[in-house]
Amino acid sequence: MTDFVAAPASNGFDVPGFVTWTTTAGLKNSGSEDMALVLNIGPHDAAAGVFTRNKVKAAPVLWTQQVLKSGALRAVLLNAGNANACTGPDGFADTHRSAERVAQSYREYNGEPEIAPIQVAVCSTGLIGERLPIAKVLNATDRLAMELSMAPVADWKAVARAIMTTDTVPKLAFGEHPAGWKIGGVGKGAAMLAPSLATMLVVVTTDAVATPAQLDQALRRATALTFDRLDVDGVSSTNDTVLLLSSGASGVEASQDELDAAVFAVCESLAAQMQADAEGVTKRVVIRVAGAASEDEAVAAARVVARDSLVKTALFGSDPNWGRVLAAVGCAPVELDPDKISVQFNGHQVCANGAAVPGARDVDLSGPDIAVEIDLGVGEGSGWIRTTDLSTEYVRLNSAYST
Amino acid sequence: MTDFVAAPASNGFDVPGFVTWTTTAGLKNSGSEDMALVLNIGPHDAAAGVFTRNKVKAAPVLWTQQVLKSGALRAVLLNAGNANACTGPDGFADTHRSAERVAQSYREYNGEPEIAPIQVAVCSTGLIGERLPIAKVLNATDRLAMELSMAPVADWKAVARAIMTTDTVPKLAFGEHPAGWKIGGVGKGAAMLAPSLATMLVVVTTDAVATPAQLDQALRRATALTFDRLDVDGVSSTNDTVLLLSSGASGVEASQDELDAAVFAVCESLAAQMQADAEGVTKRVVIRVAGAASEDEAVAAARVVARDSLVKTALFGSDPNWGRVLAAVGCAPVELDPDKISVQFNGHQVCANGAAVPGARDVDLSGPDIAVEIDLGVGEGSGWIRTTDLSTEYVRLNSAYST
Repeated sequence: MTDFVAAPASNGFDVPGFVTWTTTAGLKNSGSEDMALVLNIGPHDAAAGVFTRNKVKAAPVLWTQQVLKSGALRAVLLNAGNANACTGPDGFADTHRSAERVAQSYREYNGEPEIAPIQVAVCSTGLIGERLPIAKVLNATDRLAMELSMAPVADWKAVARAIMTTDTVPKLAFGEHPAGWKIGGVGKGAAMLAPSLATMLVVVTTDAVATPAQLDQALRRATALTFDRLDVDGVSSTNDTVLLLSSGASGVEASQDELDAAVFAVCESLAAQMQADAEGVTKRVVIRVAGAASEDEAVAAARVVARDSLVKTALFGSDPNWGRVLAAVGCAPVELDPDKISVQFNGHQVCANGAAVPGARDVDLSGPDIAVEIDLGVGEGSGWIRTTDLSTEYVRLNSAYST
Repeated sequence: MTDFVAAPASNGFDVPGFVTWTTTAGLKNSGSEDMALVLNIGPHDAAAGVFTRNKVKAAPVLWTQQVLKSGALRAVLLNAGNANACTGPDGFADTHRSAERVAQSYREYNGEPEIAPIQVAVCSTGLIGERLPIAKVLNATDRLAMELSMAPVADWKAVARAIMTTDTVPKLAFGEHPAGWKIGGVGKGAAMLAPSLATMLVVVTTDAVATPAQLDQALRRATALTFDRLDVDGVSSTNDTVLLLSSGASGVEASQDELDAAVFAVCESLAAQMQADAEGVTKRVVIRVAGAASEDEAVAAARVVARDSLVKTALFGSDPNWGRVLAAVGCAPVELDPDKISVQFNGHQVCANGAAVPGARDVDLSGPDIAVEIDLGVGEGSGWIRTTDLSTEYVRLNSAYST
């Protein structure tokens, strides 16, 4: 994969061919903006998406999966404050009506070219199990379409803010290719960050010219190495959605390799921002496993350690309790030999051949970044999972969410 | 299985054919008693054991697994304060030496019949990754054997206290069979309580006459339904050991069915006591799954929910956030149809056919016991997992353990 640099873009960015608008439907208790509309004004409309692997999928996920079978998207309607998950057939109808309303309002205020409901993706995040206040959502959708027609802007920072739930900062990343095309992404995600994505919504846009198949490959490769390896609490959300849209406005064709690198770079930056802003986080932790029988086994072992409550609470306490790392990795469904395992904390060896190294308890883990490196000593496979500590604040935040 | 009642026995119990002694080796910072010796004085010495499935096994587990291949045990040496796990070949040698010292001291102070080292099980619990202070352990072992010879007692309450780590209360259970035999058990376990056992040591003794094969069957059946279904934090310890010893002192032969029932009853009581005393527990939670494709799938689904940090933190907050239950069960590797799932909290229906039931947010979960009942609606399989909430106190306790 070629190099491509994408950086956090907290002041927003501009990707030609895309306009946005945000508004307040009244879904957040805070009264902040909670809905956003992203419009691809072309000339192209190629798109790809990846979704949660949770068997319990929210209505907007079920809808958007269908929409993306065409490989094209004209618009994305997003809301925070209500996930529209576990809402049954009525919830699906609500999603469908909001997509129809985008098409209808757009026709009314903007005229040609018309948008069909099946060209509108819908993404929701927030509380599970509550019906959307659909009248508020439809009214807000009308406003979004009307205002877009009057004063088209591309305020991605506002979009990133509108989709925040327990996020404390908006998450944006942007990069430019020397050939003259751009790529930007916004995302949200703070808990339920797990295996196949998380309570996360991400919209990545580019003005490079690319086919749906190219976008699909680039997005799958990127998410496999970024969001799929971000595991804060082992919980995969009902709503996880990552979309990639291409307007082709640059007129420049990107090669697959270039596209892969750019989408990876944007997703990597957003994943790091999500990790840093995870609920209750006090430590950014990377669990790296080497010497595994395969890359898959390395990632599987890293995931088991990343999910281990006793490892995570020890790291919260800056406690170099490497024995818990061994106890955790011993439960992973992978090939290992207990007497060959070595562990490093922030580059200091604490365990060799399954036993303590002198000074192991003295390693300083008081900083905000902790690298746990485990060598299984049985093969050549390596991989990593990005996670966080488990803090009292995580528990406090998550013990009073719905009520 | 026939009925058999075993009850908590906080003041101890007596099972003919067994004597005990406890002492202070100096392994606990508190200075409390930390070692115990259990002696089977016969006439029989049949025994069985089950052990952690963690691939990283502590030295005493590796030793005791070998010992039990004979189906016989004369003594069990237990210590708390140091797990002797992840200590390499030297740690195994320490365990071996302590078993040899039991045999040697016993010969010196008690004479015939001699105990061979291979008839001595060793169980350790405490911090992982530190070598045993072996001189202290061997000295204490001498005292245990000497005092046993001078004043044989059966102070099971003292044994239960000696093996406590972060446990706040000793755990004992006892029952009597009308035919004239008894069964009693002591255990410890407070965190790392998970799939195949936990940071738990259990010694169950009976004076019924039984073969090793009978004991093995009874113990495997009992642990599968009790300790294997206790999952506090998803972490399986390096040291989990459950032993069952028969002295045959009653002279009464127990049938397999009677033995199964009695061992189950004692293990069930101890598992409930462990749940109630789990680290940081404020809620005793049972996750029951019905309507699964099989019993195994029901237990697997219950386990995923029981391990879900977001479900556990919600229960800590007495928050009837059933949406998190659906999000969790949707990640379980089992057959399900999201539109057929129903959920009850403490008998109140909160979700039907995958969507909210009116009043779902008003269910009162403020009490110390919470039953979560999930019906998957796809089959006849049912099962349960016993767990706890995830509290700020759990995090606090576990963030400063080794240092």
